[in-house]
Amino acid sequence: MPIPMPIALTMGEPAGVGGDLALAAWRARNHEALPPFFLIDDPGRIARLARQLALDVPLHCIQSPEEAIGVFATHLPILAQRLPVDVEPGKPTSENGVAVLQAIECAVKLVTNGQAAAVVTNPIHKQVLYEAGFTYPGHTEYLASLAGPDAIPVMMLACPGLRVVPVTIHLPLAQVPGALSRQAIEACGRITAAALTRDFAIERPRLAVAGLNPHAGEGGSIGREEIEVIMPALETLRGEGIDIRDPAPADSLFHAAARANYDAALCMYHDQALLPLKTIDFFGGINITLGLPFIRT
Amino acid sequence: MPIPMPIALTMGEPAGVGGDLALAAWRARNHEALPPFFLIDDPGRIARLARQLALDVPLHCIQSPEEAIGVFATHLPILAQRLPVDVEPGKPTSENGVAVLQAIECAVKLVTNGQAAAVVTNPIHKQVLYEAGFTYPGHTEYLASLAGPDAIPVMMLACPGLRVVPVTIHLPLAQVPGALSRQAIEACGRITAAALTRDFAIERPRLAVAGLNPHAGEGGSIGREEIEVIMPALETLRGEGIDIRDPAPADSLFHAAARANYDAALCMYHDQALLPLKTIDFFGGINITLGLPFIRT
Repeated sequence: MPIPMPIALTMGEPAGVGGDLALAAWRARNHEALPPFFLIDDPGRIARLARQLALDVPLHCIQSPEEAIGVFATHLPILAQRLPVDVEPGKPTSENGVAVLQAIECAVKLVTNGQAAAVVTNPIHKQVLYEAGFTYPGHTEYLASLAGPDAIPVMMLACPGLRVVPVTIHLPLAQVPGALSRQAIEACGRITAAALTRDFAIERPRLAVAGLNPHAGEGGSIGREEIEVIMPALETLRGEGIDIRDPAPADSLFHAAARANYDAALCMYHDQALLPLKTIDFFGGINITLGLPFIRT
Repeated sequence: MPIPMPIALTMGEPAGVGGDLALAAWRARNHEALPPFFLIDDPGRIARLARQLALDVPLHCIQSPEEAIGVFATHLPILAQRLPVDVEPGKPTSENGVAVLQAIECAVKLVTNGQAAAVVTNPIHKQVLYEAGFTYPGHTEYLASLAGPDAIPVMMLACPGLRVVPVTIHLPLAQVPGALSRQAIEACGRITAAALTRDFAIERPRLAVAGLNPHAGEGGSIGREEIEVIMPALETLRGEGIDIRDPAPADSLFHAAARANYDAALCMYHDQALLPLKTIDFFGGINITLGLPFIRT
């Protein structure tokens, strides 16, 4: 029988909701039948936060992940990552930025070493991290760089009834058309199809594709990326046996009847993917990183 | 007592759903308490269509709009616009394109002359019209040009619970950032606020604004249009007494709780506006042109 492994939960921005979520998740552990997890965070600030929220959450500092399994039933296990500056909720400061990043690095190291089953990340505040020297466009790209040179991270957002995969992510809109390439679309399609089969047990996933331009370019009269970039990539993917549809107008792809026809939609840019997902299910959507050598949500 | 005026309904693409919609609307006239309207279309093809659909819709050819009032209760009034080529449903042909455009021109002339109360347009197939020499980016821009040099058309899409106004419309996505100007945002905000008060009886309309970039630019780190173009325009509009909010991340603006906080959302491009609307209400959304000297839906 394999030794059960706990899930590593990162601190995220300490002035944000990460601590609240960790406390709430631990308190819901029985009701929601959650697998054991440990939080990588500052024990002092979590204890203060629990007191402020009047939550009875006993903490237990662990030295290594495997200890989390034994204590999880009665205590929230914490792997200490001290913060240099006291946290004021709602007021992020770049002085804690390095510790926020170290908590993420620690989680990736533990899951890569086989000491944690998966990584769950609390939200970060990128502006503050940029001031602390962070150079990645987003959380996901940072995780991919930590995971090694072969990792192509693909962000999937999911809620009941909809999975979306943006091909480009944290780019200014003006840079999206230039960044969209056959290679990027092919990589996304391949990784998404493989993950739907492997992680979601969908034997033959059906992929939809949103066009970049209004009306999916309307036959080339409102932009030619559909014809010159997207369609050739889809032909390559079809040649590999992937069930992927022609680019559709993005505004017609996300109503309930349309969503029933595919298992995931490839979207060309951030808001094209996140807008329908958060419109349908603002509070329930989750972010899954495909293409990494470990599970991250 | 003013003489009641009928509504002018254009043919739209004759191989499309326009004829079906006109027949269905006339049959629903009592149930839906519809105001009298007349269709500008080819009487022969409408008669054939009614037979094909096995619908009992007696037609009456009128010579001028005022005749529509008297016959509407018992007949679908048609102002004849002959088509040179027989119509095959689902197969648009550019040979009928000029007649499609003439039906639109006729409707605008009648509403401008005071012979029709408003214009309702059936959908057109732009690709076929381009082949027939049509040079406008869309239906709305064409109506504006017919309405005269002072008309600034602003497209509003509405469904129960959401009104959206795209600042740029039928542009390739790559051209959107360059086309977005303070002037365009200011004009849209002004026309939208005025129309909400005048046509929708909202005394003090609340306008929301979607950012152009992911996370509304995240403080300038993912694009600077929010800071350099959008915010200055909003300050001008606020100076005119318009209640308009800072640009918000587009993916957070359209869930039910967010929608309750504004009367209309200005969006920076076509899909940003139409995607949430059609996701929420694919079949019920309507298109209203603000900024014209007449009512058009």
